[in-house]
Amino acid sequence: MKILIKDTTVLTMNSEAPFRGDILIEDDRIADIRPDIPDADADEIIQGTDMVAAPGFVNAHQHTAMSLLRAFSDDLKLMDWLDKKVLPAEARMTPEDIYWGAKLSMAEMIRSGTTAFADMYIHMNEVACAVEEVGMRASLTRGMVFLEDDGGRRMNEALDLVARWNGQAEGRITTMLGPHSPYTCPPEPFKEVIALAEKLNLPVHTHLAETKEEVVTIRERYNQTPAEYLYNLGLFERTHVLLAHSVHLTRKDIGLLKGMKGGVSHNPVSNLKLGCGIAPVLGMMEQGITVGLGTDGAGSATTVDMFEEIKAATWLQKLDYGDPTRLPALQALQMATRESAKLLNLRDVIGTLEVGKKADLILIDLKKPHLQPAHNLESLLAYSANGADVDTTIVNGKVLMRGRQLLTIEEEELFKQVSARAKRITEGI
Amino acid sequence: MKILIKDTTVLTMNSEAPFRGDILIEDDRIADIRPDIPDADADEIIQGTDMVAAPGFVNAHQHTAMSLLRAFSDDLKLMDWLDKKVLPAEARMTPEDIYWGAKLSMAEMIRSGTTAFADMYIHMNEVACAVEEVGMRASLTRGMVFLEDDGGRRMNEALDLVARWNGQAEGRITTMLGPHSPYTCPPEPFKEVIALAEKLNLPVHTHLAETKEEVVTIRERYNQTPAEYLYNLGLFERTHVLLAHSVHLTRKDIGLLKGMKGGVSHNPVSNLKLGCGIAPVLGMMEQGITVGLGTDGAGSATTVDMFEEIKAATWLQKLDYGDPTRLPALQALQMATRESAKLLNLRDVIGTLEVGKKADLILIDLKKPHLQPAHNLESLLAYSANGADVDTTIVNGKVLMRGRQLLTIEEEELFKQVSARAKRITEGI
Repeated sequence: MKILIKDTTVLTMNSEAPFRGDILIEDDRIADIRPDIPDADADEIIQGTDMVAAPGFVNAHQHTAMSLLRAFSDDLKLMDWLDKKVLPAEARMTPEDIYWGAKLSMAEMIRSGTTAFADMYIHMNEVACAVEEVGMRASLTRGMVFLEDDGGRRMNEALDLVARWNGQAEGRITTMLGPHSPYTCPPEPFKEVIALAEKLNLPVHTHLAETKEEVVTIRERYNQTPAEYLYNLGLFERTHVLLAHSVHLTRKDIGLLKGMKGGVSHNPVSNLKLGCGIAPVLGMMEQGITVGLGTDGAGSATTVDMFEEIKAATWLQKLDYGDPTRLPALQALQMATRESAKLLNLRDVIGTLEVGKKADLILIDLKKPHLQPAHNLESLLAYSANGADVDTTIVNGKVLMRGRQLLTIEEEELFKQVSARAKRITEGI
Repeated sequence: MKILIKDTTVLTMNSEAPFRGDILIEDDRIADIRPDIPDADADEIIQGTDMVAAPGFVNAHQHTAMSLLRAFSDDLKLMDWLDKKVLPAEARMTPEDIYWGAKLSMAEMIRSGTTAFADMYIHMNEVACAVEEVGMRASLTRGMVFLEDDGGRRMNEALDLVARWNGQAEGRITTMLGPHSPYTCPPEPFKEVIALAEKLNLPVHTHLAETKEEVVTIRERYNQTPAEYLYNLGLFERTHVLLAHSVHLTRKDIGLLKGMKGGVSHNPVSNLKLGCGIAPVLGMMEQGITVGLGTDGAGSATTVDMFEEIKAATWLQKLDYGDPTRLPALQALQMATRESAKLLNLRDVIGTLEVGKKADLILIDLKKPHLQPAHNLESLLAYSANGADVDTTIVNGKVLMRGRQLLTIEEEELFKQVSARAKRITEGI
């Protein structure tokens, strides 16, 4: 199967300026990028004029099925949000609910240009089924809390997910282990997870230092910062790690992360909406730490549109430093693509438009008033574009959206399902 | 002419919860809002199922023709942005450029649900012509800088604009006087403008305390804060005033604004992008000061989509207070509609859906993955919707967009014009 994208503007997300050219996709890979590729034997030709071709966004921190709780509990104190709303509703979620919630999130992601995501949640087997069916790329993780009795059950589910799904769906699905956070995972089980990750050669996906309250809690329990806690467990030296949030880090904490494999998913919209604070993104980057972008779940962020994260990320660094030159447009776009791909341990697989990489890419339609005139493409995409400007989304060489029409998800049925399920899950809460 | 919007969800932007109903528009006004309005003699019926009807957004601070400089000078220091890029390019703008730039901005505004705006810029006669033709509502102001010799020319142009256009275009155009800012208007000419505003019964539109540098400058020149400077000129007691930005206000400054007619246009996206800081929005509201929302020009904000301002406004207050309950969804939506309408001195005319008000309203399409499920409508609109979700835009009872098709602007010609003009204006700069 050959798809030829003709006469488009190519934004590779490496350092070169955007250029005009064609993109040839052969099966699941980018086979060629240059002007005037002959179209003789292409199975499908997509006219890319007035479009920008870019790597699809990689959402480095998601709880996809939380879309069922979108707009259910906004404008509440964090603990009210969690204890009074989210946890009681999650307790009612069946595996089938999770399947539909994940699919809803995927519909939104494909529509807004995201081609891959890292997900940590419950009933992940159903998420994997939805990923396989819908055609996205995903790194799936069963979130593990060890404060209660059934940590063992969670661990079994996590290992079952790995055994069943790692490398499946034409290689689109990979897995990680997901000890939830410093405040929900005591040292002993956390160490067990790290040992397992090392043994199975699996990355670890966890939360770190999202709130000030977490810093206080870990100080009280262990007389350490959350980052020190993870460092002292040996996490950073033993496996690839994806750290979500990392808002409240000291300068010394940042030093502990230096040299880690993996890096940090910055989730600015969620951090803003929950009033958590501004993560030291540039401070981490200065130490060579990889910082990508994620949305967090729609339960907190409301939308999982990566364009919003790009805007928020650059705005917050400019605000924090009182300096509009900080985190410029291209760097923010790279966070959402190339850097996030590294976090998913897919550095050589996706994240840039390069020959040999998997064909995960999007076409953005520039024929809109808010994307004219075209003085600077990176600026337009970072500061003015939104999810609805994505015309075409391709994952693993397969077209998942074309001309804003989803090709692998039936939306009428989806809306009917999530509406009924969301109602049942939240009734009376 | 009667338009009937059938079976929709009505969000009035007053305090009542959204409800199902019909909306009858007769000529330029809202004639009825209730369930089951008979459709016998309607000229046009719009099916509102799966839509939310809301008042159109009121953008309280714009420089519409700056859309020609969109993405032209991002990620620069404020003074480099202004001196090296914006001012040289503006110096090349012809009246006809301004006409097309204003039209570009209006195309974006109508597409993203804005029905009225306050504009301060140059060659405003051409903006007025574009407003008349396109069908939006606008409060127009010739910005006046008095640091150079030709302050008198600017004043003449300002008065000419008022004489020609105040109350014109079926009443859609009103005018203000626009002394640019404390740092560009010395006391004597500023006092003259205030006296004129009082005499002609015109509101005043000006900038206040956008940057720290402004605070330092005014301190050096007059040993006052910028707010004290305006207060001591008598501005706040003598006329309706629209203050843009007001980022750097002391507690005492806020006290000086208390009781003013008019209020403040908060422009969070521009403030973020230029690294200016967080305006004390809740502090001002606590003193009863009206705070609406504006985008500032696309030259700084890049996009003039009010959904972005709504998100940014609520995020910044939550961040500033470390408290997710601050500036909740409905309040942020009200800032963008009802409160901004007050700033334009159109309190009884637009800003809410009420019988007797002008028919300036939008229909937002909820059949999108990011707007499902519908736990809470205000949350969805404030935190997840974007400009592209607006299906229909109506101003003064006239449909300007229907099913995402602009009815009063020809986009192909628009893009051709702005592309050529933007190139000419910025070449070599």
